[in-house]
Amino acid sequence: MTAYDDLMAFQRETEALSQVAGRLGWDQETMMPRGAAPQRGEEMAAMEGILHARRVDPRVGDWLGEIDQAGLDDVGRANLRHIQRSFDRASKVPAQLASRIARVTSEAQGIWAEARAADDFAAFAPTLTEVIGLKREEGQALSAGGDVYDAMLADYEPGTTGAELEAMFGALRPELSELRAAVRAAEAPPKLEGTFDEGAQMKLTRQLAKTFGYDMSMGRVDKAVHPFSSGSGRDVRITTRTNPTDPFNCFYSTIHEVGHACYEQGIDKDYLLTPLGQGVSMGVHESQSRIYENQLGRSRAFTGWLFGQMKDAFGDFGVPDSETFYRIVNRVSDGFIRTEADELQYNLHVLMRFDLERALITHDLQVGDLEAAWNDRFEADFGYAVDRPSNGVLQDVHWSVGLIGYFPTYSLGNVYAGCLNEALQTAVPTLESDLTKGDTSRATGWLRSNVQTHGGLYEPREVIEKATGAAPSEGPLLAYLKGKFSDIYSL
Amino acid sequence: MTAYDDLMAFQRETEALSQVAGRLGWDQETMMPRGAAPQRGEEMAAMEGILHARRVDPRVGDWLGEIDQAGLDDVGRANLRHIQRSFDRASKVPAQLASRIARVTSEAQGIWAEARAADDFAAFAPTLTEVIGLKREEGQALSAGGDVYDAMLADYEPGTTGAELEAMFGALRPELSELRAAVRAAEAPPKLEGTFDEGAQMKLTRQLAKTFGYDMSMGRVDKAVHPFSSGSGRDVRITTRTNPTDPFNCFYSTIHEVGHACYEQGIDKDYLLTPLGQGVSMGVHESQSRIYENQLGRSRAFTGWLFGQMKDAFGDFGVPDSETFYRIVNRVSDGFIRTEADELQYNLHVLMRFDLERALITHDLQVGDLEAAWNDRFEADFGYAVDRPSNGVLQDVHWSVGLIGYFPTYSLGNVYAGCLNEALQTAVPTLESDLTKGDTSRATGWLRSNVQTHGGLYEPREVIEKATGAAPSEGPLLAYLKGKFSDIYSL
Repeated sequence: MTAYDDLMAFQRETEALSQVAGRLGWDQETMMPRGAAPQRGEEMAAMEGILHARRVDPRVGDWLGEIDQAGLDDVGRANLRHIQRSFDRASKVPAQLASRIARVTSEAQGIWAEARAADDFAAFAPTLTEVIGLKREEGQALSAGGDVYDAMLADYEPGTTGAELEAMFGALRPELSELRAAVRAAEAPPKLEGTFDEGAQMKLTRQLAKTFGYDMSMGRVDKAVHPFSSGSGRDVRITTRTNPTDPFNCFYSTIHEVGHACYEQGIDKDYLLTPLGQGVSMGVHESQSRIYENQLGRSRAFTGWLFGQMKDAFGDFGVPDSETFYRIVNRVSDGFIRTEADELQYNLHVLMRFDLERALITHDLQVGDLEAAWNDRFEADFGYAVDRPSNGVLQDVHWSVGLIGYFPTYSLGNVYAGCLNEALQTAVPTLESDLTKGDTSRATGWLRSNVQTHGGLYEPREVIEKATGAAPSEGPLLAYLKGKFSDIYSL
Repeated sequence: MTAYDDLMAFQRETEALSQVAGRLGWDQETMMPRGAAPQRGEEMAAMEGILHARRVDPRVGDWLGEIDQAGLDDVGRANLRHIQRSFDRASKVPAQLASRIARVTSEAQGIWAEARAADDFAAFAPTLTEVIGLKREEGQALSAGGDVYDAMLADYEPGTTGAELEAMFGALRPELSELRAAVRAAEAPPKLEGTFDEGAQMKLTRQLAKTFGYDMSMGRVDKAVHPFSSGSGRDVRITTRTNPTDPFNCFYSTIHEVGHACYEQGIDKDYLLTPLGQGVSMGVHESQSRIYENQLGRSRAFTGWLFGQMKDAFGDFGVPDSETFYRIVNRVSDGFIRTEADELQYNLHVLMRFDLERALITHDLQVGDLEAAWNDRFEADFGYAVDRPSNGVLQDVHWSVGLIGYFPTYSLGNVYAGCLNEALQTAVPTLESDLTKGDTSRATGWLRSNVQTHGGLYEPREVIEKATGAAPSEGPLLAYLKGKFSDIYSL
């Protein structure tokens, strides 16, 4: 056994234990009896303790020091890059700070939930101040004198900087805001009316999952309050939800999560339980969920097929033709809530969070001024005022649990999806006629071969560059959105 | 922090991790997608590795050495007794032997399954010889010169010896065999006919679970190929199965597993995630499942109530009255398979396994002679010949996976259930009228207060003695079975 073999054997067990912890999280949201919560907290904490100890295990540092990289191939070097990064990250943060962050964010989530229920930002502000302070301290430890926000970004999107995102998002914002205003001034498509049997929704949603290439022999679909995808390798499970008056919520939540799940299922099985065996970043992950959900799932071609499926499942549901159905699916509506936003407006929600959290971390913005800053920005971009904190600054859980640097990966994922979609249109000339028949196999096959299969082999940006042949930019996403919504709204 | 506090904090994490491993097992049998099996094997092995390392962690030995028992109360001393026993057990077995046993038994299970499918004992014999050899070696390491089989028993029923069981079972065997012959010579009750909707079976089975006091807020009921109960404390899940022509299989599997689950749920919550927080032995566990299933669930009073529930669930199903229903439920039929045996014949199946495995371990019996020994013994006790190995010596998985010393705990549990039932009749004078109304609350409440709540506080035999006021013996079980079946069969 060489040092590399020893390290990889140790790492393989760590990856397996990490899968176990993930499965426990899945169970908690789907199967766990309500009364088990306190015991489960201790079970999860014990697993986290084991995983943390392995991440900072001094033997990992020793092995990393002993390995001669010259003898390794691309896969070996990529494995080391991930392990080194994770080891450095865990070692740079003092144990006492890490445990304070864990404790404070765990309590902060409850305080945030109460403040949101009471619509009282002031009740959450002191806790958020503490979280921001601790996270800034952590960022300083990680950045070693460099940009603190960039160090935080690296947890979710290694290789990307705040400055790059600022330039990209800065180019998107005025164009999206203008497109949004034009769309809202035009005549809106009708809304979907009626109720839709939830059992039939789940039946069709499982069919949709298979249609998008989700392998049910290595996954399953259950209901949960919040849709999510969980696990890597041969056991990747998704959840969705049903609402009798909003079947699109069920179907597009499913397709979104199937995008995440197919990424995990599509990774080269040689990378199973190694650092390469999971999606490389949040941004690339979101590119897969978004291109499945939007560029493919909400296309005119695919919705034409879906219209027929829904008529089969629910009978005549009052929509006269597939063109009307397409316009209903892509209806742009006012709203305060990010997670309910349509394809056009979603990024405006994210961009403001990116600017605000970056300002919080780089000291320009104090938590005491955050609510006002949020409300001003919202009105500037959307044209109407936030009515209450639960529809504004208190709507997302992220900051309370210390997720800073996470929000921008949502829009970066959309930007990547735009780039991939452009390349896909060229690579699969039959795309439109395929989707008209509900056949995603060539599209998802191209994504599997050009993105998903690589897992963690390349850096996130490299993955997109290799697939598209160009550096990622916001241009394709913007062109796609302008084209689509100008058409639907006859602008 | 004293050494005791340190030890208990460490142990608490170990117990939490052990619950996680158990939940993984539950998932595997109920929810896991088929294709995930190989990955799951690695996940389980990683968890087992963590748990094993904690069991033999030298710090545990140090803490045990430092603690002054004089300063501890009963609970503290009981905790130490369990931890010491587990530490000694793990430390006595050489690591290399433990890992050979793990590897060989893991392979042996597959070889056994193939041999059973092919009805070919010779194909399994070499593997069984290897398993027996390794287990004997392990038993020698554990017994340190004492009785090897007793050392194996201690894994499942600490404090019990092969000699004690031999005396107890030796008294049972001729009486049961004689009773069996008399019953089989008498006129049999009718069989249940017809088919029973499986959805309605599951609905009634969940109601039965609640009727026996199973707390659904800390548990759940799912289907699995083999019914089982899993978990301790606040998350104790059971499984059952359905067969359209045999609803009793569903209902009595459920009541049996509810007995196990209520034991776990009924343990004093102060013992949560400590060595006292789970059932104290396999025998005491089986006493709870059996008294729920048989003495309560198959009683004339309770089946009278169940008859009404089944009529509500399935309409008229061709049984004229509750007395006929009672006789159908308790019908004694010929059969080769232990797990399908009725209350009267079950122990005869177990007693022969106890004698045979003890003979295998103490060298009187060679694996090459096992099939003939099995067949001779079966014919002697049941009066007819085994027709093929899958109905005989190959029917149970236990020996292939190294479970030796486990079988007798099934009958010991029945003996304990007999003792508890005798005491319960006196303690709850309203028992019969309660059960007639489907009310088990006083009965299960008595079991909770007198058996379940103690968890691991006392030694197994002590638990029964404290509850019944007498040393356990086979007398009450025998009297109960004779009375019940003489009545049903008019002997």
